[in-house]
Amino acid sequence: MLETVGVPTDKLEFVKGSDYQKSAEYTMDVYRLSSVVTEHDAKRAGAEVVKQVDNAPLSGLLYPLMQALDEEHLGVDAQFGGVDQRKIFTLAQETLPKLGYKERAHLMNPMVPGLAGGKMSSSDPDSKIDILDNADAVKKKLKKAYAMPKEVEGNGIISFVEYVLLPISALSNAEGKGEFVVERREEEGGKVVYNDIESLKADYAADKLTPQLLKNAVTVTLQKLLAPIQEKFLANKEWQEIEKKAYPPPPKLEKKAKKPKNKGSKYPGAAKAATDGENPTNTKAVEEGLEKLEMKE
Amino acid sequence: MLETVGVPTDKLEFVKGSDYQKSAEYTMDVYRLSSVVTEHDAKRAGAEVVKQVDNAPLSGLLYPLMQALDEEHLGVDAQFGGVDQRKIFTLAQETLPKLGYKERAHLMNPMVPGLAGGKMSSSDPDSKIDILDNADAVKKKLKKAYAMPKEVEGNGIISFVEYVLLPISALSNAEGKGEFVVERREEEGGKVVYNDIESLKADYAADKLTPQLLKNAVTVTLQKLLAPIQEKFLANKEWQEIEKKAYPPPPKLEKKAKKPKNKGSKYPGAAKAATDGENPTNTKAVEEGLEKLEMKE
Repeated sequence: MLETVGVPTDKLEFVKGSDYQKSAEYTMDVYRLSSVVTEHDAKRAGAEVVKQVDNAPLSGLLYPLMQALDEEHLGVDAQFGGVDQRKIFTLAQETLPKLGYKERAHLMNPMVPGLAGGKMSSSDPDSKIDILDNADAVKKKLKKAYAMPKEVEGNGIISFVEYVLLPISALSNAEGKGEFVVERREEEGGKVVYNDIESLKADYAADKLTPQLLKNAVTVTLQKLLAPIQEKFLANKEWQEIEKKAYPPPPKLEKKAKKPKNKGSKYPGAAKAATDGENPTNTKAVEEGLEKLEMKE
Repeated sequence: MLETVGVPTDKLEFVKGSDYQKSAEYTMDVYRLSSVVTEHDAKRAGAEVVKQVDNAPLSGLLYPLMQALDEEHLGVDAQFGGVDQRKIFTLAQETLPKLGYKERAHLMNPMVPGLAGGKMSSSDPDSKIDILDNADAVKKKLKKAYAMPKEVEGNGIISFVEYVLLPISALSNAEGKGEFVVERREEEGGKVVYNDIESLKADYAADKLTPQLLKNAVTVTLQKLLAPIQEKFLANKEWQEIEKKAYPPPPKLEKKAKKPKNKGSKYPGAAKAATDGENPTNTKAVEEGLEKLEMKE
């Protein structure tokens, strides 16, 4: 995925949570932090990220503390996440200095609405594009996607163009200018190229850009974007094994895979647990969720 | 103290919590356990041991889990504590098997009422005898102690004889028979030796054993018991340093020292924090409180 959008992967270092979270230093910091953070504050911090149930396991309260401590133990200058991370970021900002650690910068992405309307959800495969969705799956999902003509507000497909497709295309443009191409037949006016979301929204509101045209254009763009990832994935037995282990196909549901876009949630197991009717054990989620991406300076 | 009552100290091994609680295995077990124990259950388990305040720090919820895990990581067959530990013991019994660990036996001591009446409290020096109290202090405390004539129920001094002095004297008797000696002047009937608490209680109820006589007898017995400890302590600069660091003398209060008898509380800092008006940071208490005593097989 990163190669597809032109990231220099040789400058990336992947750090697994388990590489440092089991150390004595980290562990003592968890206890130190747990003595300055109250139950109430831990719960509030995790409100949008940790599954809220009546009889919640303690791990959900520990999770925000661990995410805060990660900043220190990863030695990062900034943490990046969706706006749903705001309360955890606030916790980090308020509590790390109490342990004598510095406050970090926090960068937040807006949340993109789901394709099915409403919130994007990892438990609803139709609300999102999975990074391993093949051309067919992409086509099917876009076809089903919710898109009222002329309605720009809360339109998941337009948000997807705005926050995903335009920025990605901008990455491979020398001037950093994104473009989104809508092919139309000659008699419909021919190809249109949007360089900003405002003109696209204006056309959509005026019904010059119909839901059908928008859907087709997103489908084609996405298929192109995902094709090389699909190809590499299919050529790599190991990745396929990992994907199967991480996301065993639920009966009668489409295969789940890591969502590429919703970087906001550092807690991928939470919503999954909700649908699978699992026990309230989210150790796995805690472990998995804590894998971090760190950019070398 | 252990030598005074004849414990073969060469068969004892002292294990500090920090020796194993910072290990990766222990840490992962804390997370695993925190994913099966709910907030509610952790709070209930700590109800009698962890200070209950409105805005309690998370550490108080982690504490019962750590005490439960200690059983596994210390490799013990049984855990011993006061009846105030019952809920933590129950937690251990119910949750360790969920991690694939065995259930342990739990041994409980009754709680001895305080000398001042009511609950023995580490924040009220007059409610307990400190192991480092010298002859004068012992005398003063017993003088102040609450003891209504004929009243056996809730009488902290009688309980002290029952649960502390009689059992201790039994340790040094070949037949395991305890004795408690009350000296009286000849005209009062002379010396009485009690071998069981029932006869003592009967005499007390009948006012044959007056509060004054009981207090004097306890004072003398305790002074004898504590004298060798006092002596060793005063001969050892290092111990005196440690005692000062652990229990700095509060202004206008008598010097605090480790209570010898209330083995029930594994959380010595809790009550102290309450009186000192400290911040709700009990990391130190968590660390200190987790020092365990393990008998070699």
